[in-house]
Amino acid sequence: MADKAQLQEAIKTQGEVVRKLKSEKASKEQIDEEVAKLLQLKAQLGGDEGKHVFVLKTAKGTRDYNPKQMAIREKVFNIIISCFKRHGAETIDTPVFELKETLTGKYGEDSKLIYDLKDQGGELLSLRYDLTVPFARYLAMNKITNIKRYHIAKVYRRDNPAMTRGRYREFYQCDFDIAGQYDAMIPDAECLKIVYEILNELDLGDFRIKVGCWVVFDLSLARGLDYYTGVIYEAILSQTIPALVSTPAEQNGADEAGVSVGSVAGGGRYDGLVGMFDPKGRKVPCVGVSIGIERIFSIMEQKAEASSEKVRTTETQVLVASAQKNLLEERLKLTNALWNEGIKAEVLYKKNPKLLSQLQHCEETGIPLVAILGEQELKDGVVKLRNVVSREEVDVPRADLVDEIKKRTL
Amino acid sequence: MADKAQLQEAIKTQGEVVRKLKSEKASKEQIDEEVAKLLQLKAQLGGDEGKHVFVLKTAKGTRDYNPKQMAIREKVFNIIISCFKRHGAETIDTPVFELKETLTGKYGEDSKLIYDLKDQGGELLSLRYDLTVPFARYLAMNKITNIKRYHIAKVYRRDNPAMTRGRYREFYQCDFDIAGQYDAMIPDAECLKIVYEILNELDLGDFRIKVGCWVVFDLSLARGLDYYTGVIYEAILSQTIPALVSTPAEQNGADEAGVSVGSVAGGGRYDGLVGMFDPKGRKVPCVGVSIGIERIFSIMEQKAEASSEKVRTTETQVLVASAQKNLLEERLKLTNALWNEGIKAEVLYKKNPKLLSQLQHCEETGIPLVAILGEQELKDGVVKLRNVVSREEVDVPRADLVDEIKKRTL
Repeated sequence: MADKAQLQEAIKTQGEVVRKLKSEKASKEQIDEEVAKLLQLKAQLGGDEGKHVFVLKTAKGTRDYNPKQMAIREKVFNIIISCFKRHGAETIDTPVFELKETLTGKYGEDSKLIYDLKDQGGELLSLRYDLTVPFARYLAMNKITNIKRYHIAKVYRRDNPAMTRGRYREFYQCDFDIAGQYDAMIPDAECLKIVYEILNELDLGDFRIKVGCWVVFDLSLARGLDYYTGVIYEAILSQTIPALVSTPAEQNGADEAGVSVGSVAGGGRYDGLVGMFDPKGRKVPCVGVSIGIERIFSIMEQKAEASSEKVRTTETQVLVASAQKNLLEERLKLTNALWNEGIKAEVLYKKNPKLLSQLQHCEETGIPLVAILGEQELKDGVVKLRNVVSREEVDVPRADLVDEIKKRTL
Repeated sequence: MADKAQLQEAIKTQGEVVRKLKSEKASKEQIDEEVAKLLQLKAQLGGDEGKHVFVLKTAKGTRDYNPKQMAIREKVFNIIISCFKRHGAETIDTPVFELKETLTGKYGEDSKLIYDLKDQGGELLSLRYDLTVPFARYLAMNKITNIKRYHIAKVYRRDNPAMTRGRYREFYQCDFDIAGQYDAMIPDAECLKIVYEILNELDLGDFRIKVGCWVVFDLSLARGLDYYTGVIYEAILSQTIPALVSTPAEQNGADEAGVSVGSVAGGGRYDGLVGMFDPKGRKVPCVGVSIGIERIFSIMEQKAEASSEKVRTTETQVLVASAQKNLLEERLKLTNALWNEGIKAEVLYKKNPKLLSQLQHCEETGIPLVAILGEQELKDGVVKLRNVVSREEVDVPRADLVDEIKKRTL
């Protein structure tokens, strides 16, 4: 924890910075940032001696994913990864930060948006800005000349966030790239096929794929990325999603950075990038595609919101419950047995929960079955299996319980 | 790119820093770090004007995962996630960085190991040090008082890396936590059960789970973590793995930080942490466990290395090949049709590849089947399906091909 006098000094200085900016009529953005800093310092000091009041927020331009968002994210990733695997791709992973120097000179004007780490002694590091430059570094470092790989990971850009439209400072990229010297256009065509398959399976409505060439085509397609050398392409949803279009400028089909709002995938050929890392400048031709997954998440979330179907955040098949008191041990024993037999099961962490609150938990979380224990059932060697939706109940011999649960939750 | 004169000035200054440290007989660690910085600056300057020579490495204490390591990682994650889901857990995700202030005062002495981001205007940020503090911040921020959640993500510590023993500066944590006011010891017991199930299924040999209490038990269990309040536990593999034990000190069962070398999971109760974030200090009791996945990766990698079975890095079921020239279009057409029918298929990106090189690709990557096209097969409406290992070949009518491939690659 910082020393109190030091903090007070810092607060005074920061207060002056804010007042100066305000008197100079600096931009709202700039003032907001400095005020946020001031508030943070004040929060560190806290109201009284021992007690600290925290600013409860995530960093600007970032967000948490709650369980519902994670369930949607998992569904989207499963579709994308299945496609990549169907095409025989391997996967790799690289660290979230690179030597600063690895990223230098790859992003043109946009380099100012790179997050640097503080110099705490040791190497100078920056957070990755995309997955393509780390991929090229990986290829050069390991002298790999042939690979078809996908990489799904978060990247970082100190951009102006526009979170309602799915634009964040921390966001996922889903990249598929083919490196190697091959006969013309075959790998390029596979990249386009992949975009087509994924957008089709995600069921996002009609889309167009624009294909062009770096030298002759619309430069806005490859905004800020200096490394494209040949064919480039971009996939655009035909139907714009209302909540993703919030200002008149954007309704013209482009946001302030010149990227189409409906753009959900893009890529191209970058034959020179790996050579920039190789001491002898040996080239490895590459072509790849990046799926703009955050926009897809936004769309899927809105679809889920609009649909009457509830998104489940767990996969629990059965809740082990009891209608009577003093059956905690029996409930735990049965739950444990079900876990050991591979059934997804839950039990409430209460000694004597009411049957009603146990049933409510199932309704709230979408658990389809309840296995109810009682004195009589224990005596008879059966379990009462209840269907939460239909409320139908049936006594199932303990020995048949696992099969019965499996049959009913296919 | 940095200005040349500026760079030369920086190199001169850094050279002086290194010489001074050497003359003062500073620690090797410290000198190495400053030399690395000097080399990086020199690399930035490059050999001649336009040409830059890059330091081809990942940041200290970090590593890439190659496709083989990723295949092992996926297998381990699948086992762990299945277990978490079997226990009815939801999952969440939080950003890789938090407001610096969120992490302050949570890690005692170890706070010096936190990575800070550079102040580039705006908020002061740090990389997450674990997943527990962001989880507590998430609960307080969203006023959540009940949740059973897992979170698998990378965390960051500027520790002395010992990579041969699976200790990195960027590493995965797999956390499972139960938040909420419940009857005593029931959630605590589930955490222990989870550790037992996971270590059992990962097949890592015998292990012990030590259970103790913060106040009466061995403090080394919760090294550096200030937030534990009640029961704490640690799982230790009985069999130490040779390559994970490299110095005599460690053979006593503890490395220099006092953690058992065979330690692969740990956790405990932290009833006060969420309250630290709540403006009114409202407490949310929590208990959780963290699986030390990097050590488990190391062990699994060694097991894979020692085993005769080859680790596959793709899931491709069939390679579409031809024995004759000029069949590129037919090969692409068939591959495309297989993709559309959900078969994982590959095709070589060559106009006229040799049959031998197509078969070699299968042997190298473990693809079990080859679908061979030739003039005769096309005329007859069949495909020659070859088993790569047994070399047995059979003509399959085109209409039956998908079923036949599925049957042979169950």
